[in-house]
Amino acid sequence: MGYSKEKLNEEKVFKDPVHRYVHVRDQVIWDLIGSKEFQRLRRIKQLGTTFFTFHGAEHSRFNHSLGVYEIVRRIVDDVFCGRPEWDQEERLLSLCAALLHDIGHGPFSHSFEKVFNLDHEEFTKDIILGNTEVHRILARVNNEFPEKVAEVIGKTYKNKQVVSLISSQIDADRMDYLQRDAYFTGVSYGHFDMERILRVMRPHDDQVVIKHSGMHAVEDYIMSRYQMYWQVYFHPVTRSAEVILTKTLHRAKHLYKQSYSFKTPPVHFYSLFENKPILKDYLKLDEAVVLYYLQMWIEEDDSILKDLCSRFMNRNLFKYSEFDPAKEYKKVVRLSELFKQAGIDPEYYLVVDSSSDLPYDFYRPGEEEERQPIHLLMKNGEIHELSRESDIVDAISGKRRTDHKLYYPLDFIMDDRSEKSVKKQICALLGLQKEEK
Amino acid sequence: MGYSKEKLNEEKVFKDPVHRYVHVRDQVIWDLIGSKEFQRLRRIKQLGTTFFTFHGAEHSRFNHSLGVYEIVRRIVDDVFCGRPEWDQEERLLSLCAALLHDIGHGPFSHSFEKVFNLDHEEFTKDIILGNTEVHRILARVNNEFPEKVAEVIGKTYKNKQVVSLISSQIDADRMDYLQRDAYFTGVSYGHFDMERILRVMRPHDDQVVIKHSGMHAVEDYIMSRYQMYWQVYFHPVTRSAEVILTKTLHRAKHLYKQSYSFKTPPVHFYSLFENKPILKDYLKLDEAVVLYYLQMWIEEDDSILKDLCSRFMNRNLFKYSEFDPAKEYKKVVRLSELFKQAGIDPEYYLVVDSSSDLPYDFYRPGEEEERQPIHLLMKNGEIHELSRESDIVDAISGKRRTDHKLYYPLDFIMDDRSEKSVKKQICALLGLQKEEK
Amino acid sequence: MGYSKEKLNEEKVFKDPVHRYVHVRDQVIWDLIGSKEFQRLRRIKQLGTTFFTFHGAEHSRFNHSLGVYEIVRRIVDDVFCGRPEWDQEERLLSLCAALLHDIGHGPFSHSFEKVFNLDHEEFTKDIILGNTEVHRILARVNNEFPEKVAEVIGKTYKNKQVVSLISSQIDADRMDYLQRDAYFTGVSYGHFDMERILRVMRPHDDQVVIKHSGMHAVEDYIMSRYQMYWQVYFHPVTRSAEVILTKTLHRAKHLYKQSYSFKTPPVHFYSLFENKPILKDYLKLDEAVVLYYLQMWIEEDDSILKDLCSRFMNRNLFKYSEFDPAKEYKKVVRLSELFKQAGIDPEYYLVVDSSSDLPYDFYRPGEEEERQPIHLLMKNGEIHELSRESDIVDAISGKRRTDHKLYYPLDFIMDDRSEKSVKKQICALLGLQKEEK
Amino acid sequence: MGYSKEKLNEEKVFKDPVHRYVHVRDQVIWDLIGSKEFQRLRRIKQLGTTFFTFHGAEHSRFNHSLGVYEIVRRIVDDVFCGRPEWDQEERLLSLCAALLHDIGHGPFSHSFEKVFNLDHEEFTKDIILGNTEVHRILARVNNEFPEKVAEVIGKTYKNKQVVSLISSQIDADRMDYLQRDAYFTGVSYGHFDMERILRVMRPHDDQVVIKHSGMHAVEDYIMSRYQMYWQVYFHPVTRSAEVILTKTLHRAKHLYKQSYSFKTPPVHFYSLFENKPILKDYLKLDEAVVLYYLQMWIEEDDSILKDLCSRFMNRNLFKYSEFDPAKEYKKVVRLSELFKQAGIDPEYYLVVDSSSDLPYDFYRPGEEEERQPIHLLMKNGEIHELSRESDIVDAISGKRRTDHKLYYPLDFIMDDRSEKSVKKQICALLGLQKEEK
Repeated sequence: MGYSKEKLNEEKVFKDPVHRYVHVRDQVIWDLIGSKEFQRLRRIKQLGTTFFTFHGAEHSRFNHSLGVYEIVRRIVDDVFCGRPEWDQEERLLSLCAALLHDIGHGPFSHSFEKVFNLDHEEFTKDIILGNTEVHRILARVNNEFPEKVAEVIGKTYKNKQVVSLISSQIDADRMDYLQRDAYFTGVSYGHFDMERILRVMRPHDDQVVIKHSGMHAVEDYIMSRYQMYWQVYFHPVTRSAEVILTKTLHRAKHLYKQSYSFKTPPVHFYSLFENKPILKDYLKLDEAVVLYYLQMWIEEDDSILKDLCSRFMNRNLFKYSEFDPAKEYKKVVRLSELFKQAGIDPEYYLVVDSSSDLPYDFYRPGEEEERQPIHLLMKNGEIHELSRESDIVDAISGKRRTDHKLYYPLDFIMDDRSEKSVKKQICALLGLQKEEK
Repeated sequence: MGYSKEKLNEEKVFKDPVHRYVHVRDQVIWDLIGSKEFQRLRRIKQLGTTFFTFHGAEHSRFNHSLGVYEIVRRIVDDVFCGRPEWDQEERLLSLCAALLHDIGHGPFSHSFEKVFNLDHEEFTKDIILGNTEVHRILARVNNEFPEKVAEVIGKTYKNKQVVSLISSQIDADRMDYLQRDAYFTGVSYGHFDMERILRVMRPHDDQVVIKHSGMHAVEDYIMSRYQMYWQVYFHPVTRSAEVILTKTLHRAKHLYKQSYSFKTPPVHFYSLFENKPILKDYLKLDEAVVLYYLQMWIEEDDSILKDLCSRFMNRNLFKYSEFDPAKEYKKVVRLSELFKQAGIDPEYYLVVDSSSDLPYDFYRPGEEEERQPIHLLMKNGEIHELSRESDIVDAISGKRRTDHKLYYPLDFIMDDRSEKSVKKQICALLGLQKEEK
Repeated sequence: MGYSKEKLNEEKVFKDPVHRYVHVRDQVIWDLIGSKEFQRLRRIKQLGTTFFTFHGAEHSRFNHSLGVYEIVRRIVDDVFCGRPEWDQEERLLSLCAALLHDIGHGPFSHSFEKVFNLDHEEFTKDIILGNTEVHRILARVNNEFPEKVAEVIGKTYKNKQVVSLISSQIDADRMDYLQRDAYFTGVSYGHFDMERILRVMRPHDDQVVIKHSGMHAVEDYIMSRYQMYWQVYFHPVTRSAEVILTKTLHRAKHLYKQSYSFKTPPVHFYSLFENKPILKDYLKLDEAVVLYYLQMWIEEDDSILKDLCSRFMNRNLFKYSEFDPAKEYKKVVRLSELFKQAGIDPEYYLVVDSSSDLPYDFYRPGEEEERQPIHLLMKNGEIHELSRESDIVDAISGKRRTDHKLYYPLDFIMDDRSEKSVKKQICALLGLQKEEK
Repeated sequence: MGYSKEKLNEEKVFKDPVHRYVHVRDQVIWDLIGSKEFQRLRRIKQLGTTFFTFHGAEHSRFNHSLGVYEIVRRIVDDVFCGRPEWDQEERLLSLCAALLHDIGHGPFSHSFEKVFNLDHEEFTKDIILGNTEVHRILARVNNEFPEKVAEVIGKTYKNKQVVSLISSQIDADRMDYLQRDAYFTGVSYGHFDMERILRVMRPHDDQVVIKHSGMHAVEDYIMSRYQMYWQVYFHPVTRSAEVILTKTLHRAKHLYKQSYSFKTPPVHFYSLFENKPILKDYLKLDEAVVLYYLQMWIEEDDSILKDLCSRFMNRNLFKYSEFDPAKEYKKVVRLSELFKQAGIDPEYYLVVDSSSDLPYDFYRPGEEEERQPIHLLMKNGEIHELSRESDIVDAISGKRRTDHKLYYPLDFIMDDRSEKSVKKQICALLGLQKEEK
């Protein structure tokens, strides 16, 4: 019997607060979970800086990855298995891709990817195909297996049913994170009847469709997603911490380029600063390491770097104002000038941040994040696109919502000890009440 | 109006998955939460190495501290307020002590306290009375206030009702952590009707008592505690990770004493290695820093240090066997000799670990952790000790349960490439099946 | 101290699965709960025939009425109390109106009100103002009090804030039943963050408004309502049972008018059959009594009455087909003729049933069920109508959705033993597969 | 393919608040659920008069029976299926016995069985083997099948594994009702990790055992059971309503024997009053019918009957005092005399009620309700009785707890309008405060 069919002597279970139990029977899965690269996900938070807003959101990507695996396992073993339209030979591939779909994520992905122009999907590929424990385990299944896993995660795999399980508008990834993030933050959004959705999923041609009888559960899921994005993921306080982290990384890179002499040199960051990220270095870069540097850099001489680090570590975040880029562009230019006059570098202390989401889309050809619409399997066997059947989904379908905010350090602006009159003008422009003492 | 009575313009709420919301109205509490020392608790896990066993247990002491505060706030504001036996002047003191009761905790307290002979209660005192943001905030209330807060946490404060809220056999600390740890691990133990218990708590003479009508909720609480200790807190896998961390710290200290030349010198640990812990250093020592060193030390030359660090980072833990110290003492001596012969240093690789708990006690005078028994307020006004009224509690009362385990690296022992026959003897003694190949 | 201020010696609590506890401190409320007319609500199910579809939905209106009371109590005591815009003198009136808002409901209200042209709101008034225990309790508060309670429930009371608590588009009634019905049926819809909504409710001029910060919780509530209507309240199986009950009552009345000689004479129904409902009789008419008659009438000679009763008691319900009245009116006429030919009386066995709901409306002046829109209190103090601020609510606002179904006894139609060819035509028209044997 | 293997075209699901979904695939099960006798269980409450204490407890035996079925289905299909020690041919038998185990229950069983000397287990047998729809369905499987189902429920079936699933100290019946009754009452007891217990159940020789790793979940289950008995099932208010109902039935029977001329003759009760219960009559006797009579009898002339009925309908229950039969027997004799003098018939108005439970027992040979102890399957393959391994269970094992209460109508005793001095003596004996006016 080959490695791909090898079963554990006894099923292993992980106690999971969201799915109650995660079940593992395959030796391959067990070995992947034990790999160094997968264990590293314990040191990367699922929601980055969200814990500054929702203190419960301290859960890791390890957590989430097990959850996505478990959902795919239930679909494949309990719902798809035995159906003629599904090829059970794809089982192990689906499970591995589910487990590893986030393996390339680094610390605080939003900020790091932005500053260093990284793409976690590239690293995912590198980890699966490179010189890693994960790769060696996958290659034991067979020579082509690692490549296949990478293809599924990269959405290029030929069997689109497998791809759909991991990446579509209603996939195991989204179903896990909505529920998990709701559980750990404690918000009341994020609940939908996943058990019902799983039971009505059907493999069909080159996709996974939903039986019409499950439409209302899907509506609930879409609404959950909408609420989670705006109530949790795009929360302005979370984004403030992200802005600070982003600017910290910018500053550190800038100083490095300037040959600034660090008391604690950013050894772990060198390859990133040089725009030549190396897998081996990247794998060492977890959130503990980042926090170590942020703490150490509070002691640096550069006043901007030390201030930003101290703000992040001690949660002394930027405040924000609503901002309409179309109408208020000039205001930012003016503010920028005033900041300079007040001795507050606008490069680091005056930041526009935008969030944008499309709650559901019937079709987005050619778009960056092009995803299949959700299709319903009608009683008569026809396939209908969701928004055609659901009034609610139709109402929000295709409507992109964007939010812009302007971030700045209120404490600096309110500090009367210098540049009093300039700061007064800043306050006026920002609509802040500057209390005269 | 003084600082002690200052209210926020608008109540602040924290979304909490356990208590739904944590409410803050007092400026003092708001300022304490924002202090550097309190924010540091975000970087210290509530359950240390438990996340290796229960992957959900990634929540921090920040989380728990807010929870204890909220429970005390509900007792004081909703239940005690207005009762003649309670002095509402103690309100703010109770809230501050609740919030700060764990402020002195460091990273992975179990292991650190054992190796470095630390006492987090000492640090709590130092933080409250020393040169810290927390101290400055408390001192603004009035000069004696910091000392009072320290006394409540140290259990020496004269008003024992206040002490009881934070430290007794049924206090806000325990009620929060049982529920919180159950929530984040996902286990089904840990549930009891806290709302009921809060409603029947009464200030009475020098303690807090429970109205008889709430006895069954208290029984449930005692049983929850019992189950959580043995199912979660003393889980053998969690202890395995603790053992490894403890031995890592031992080894690093040993090497330091030997003037070993570290590639990454343990700067953050110097004062601990010298047995002269300094508050300033201690406050920098969070779990991110510890993990940074553990990762770096994988690159050290010392084979024991690098092995132990690698085990911890990659969750390659020790296995364990049941062990009865009374009967099997000689076995450990013999194993120790065999380990030496096999080239496995028993000092680091053969470890006895013991856990022990007293689920409830009617009275433990003179004991280390002496705690008041739980008293019931009977309908006729009498005060009865809980185990006198409750059959179940009586059945487990005062019965200490202890568990001993022997930890060792199974992979080393199973490694056939050297000392085959010695290892065979080790296996025999440990009752392991050594498969002949 | 007058009766209106009289407090119980000790607060009474009811364990409630939805709100955890219902708290009663007022003697007036305690007495109302103990009254004969209120206890009668235990024998009337909250959701009528829904238990045939969702077996958990066996909860009574007693349950729900306590829940509405508890929500209003929390608003008035914990949120409104002390606010200048709220008159705390309205407290007891609000609580009584909340508790009694459904006191006039009879068994299976939908069916009874339709057949006998009853209005439960009339009976509510009669019970509050008539010769009842409830009236005597209310009158002890003061002479005008019963009239005031009736006015609040009837929406004519001058203080519209009080009316809004009980009847508006976001009132205690709806908030309780959505959650309660979700709990007992077990569906995953119906959850929203009520605690949040209660905390942001504000008395304002002649209404109750919601602070803007609670908008998302309100969106969730609107979506819950939408889902509950279509997934639970309008479930076609539930409506089938209602159709059968309605037709049973029709038949019994018809037979009575024909002077049919009942084996079990419908004594309890006489005044209804005569269109002269009497309060004293109405109060005896609970669901136990109705079920008693249905069981007894299975033994009657009239074949239609006995068949309908047997169907209801043994859950042998009608099947249904989708039906579009605009396009398919002629089909019903034709079916009606065919039913007659087949010996199946279409009057009782071919029924069109329609359900219709407006999930939220900004304004419906002059409509039957005119209700205030939901108003948000913006940060700047302005009042904005909800759909103006919420994309989701705007999308579904004012859109009435209606559903028509055609009900018939499939077993009769499929019964081959008579009128085979006529039944074949019926099957064809209904789109049923009539299997040839 | 025979009826026993016949599957529904599409699996049917019932939404269940406790188990989320109940799944039905077998035609036999579907037909049994649709049978007249099973539908009748909708009109019989699971917890009799408990709804007077916990208003949520309005759920029916229909509910519970589906739940027990679902638990057995999960055990048999998901855990036992494929294990060599289990005979999958017993599957359908197990499911049918689970579904029908309570089919013989009548209205308010406690009271009815006591007064009329009924045994619901006899009726279960009669329904399964007699002239019923249930019997005809079972007989279609094969001729011996009904008898087998009756044997499993009667605990005489030869395969004790099947019997254990339905009746043992940890069976599907108990696991369902503990959770279900906790859910509907809303109490926080009753929770245990059933999913865990199901996963560690193993067929073993002539019983079902529990793997040792599940011991703590079983401890939790035993404690839940203990708490549910004393907090819910034996609640003194519930028992007060039972006492009144019991006495009502006694009175009605007494009057019948005396040839009292009823305005509403107790037709449905004749065969019971004659001690010749007839299945056909019994099946008509649901709780709606009983409530109908209780309401009608409020209009009878007999003052005792009308008073008792009115008390039950309007929840005007008896009060109670603690009572120690060993020490206070004489007191009851004396009270009985005084009641007579006061014109209150002690036969109906002075009632001793006793409740008694054994939370767990290792072995009760020869006892009325003899049940197998719970056996653990140890790692080494040995079988150990639970209390030998669990300290907590050992502590409460075999300890019967009994509670006696004395019930009486406080309002009668407090009524000053007659026999003032006798009533004063009664109050003194009962320890009641008789307020002088």
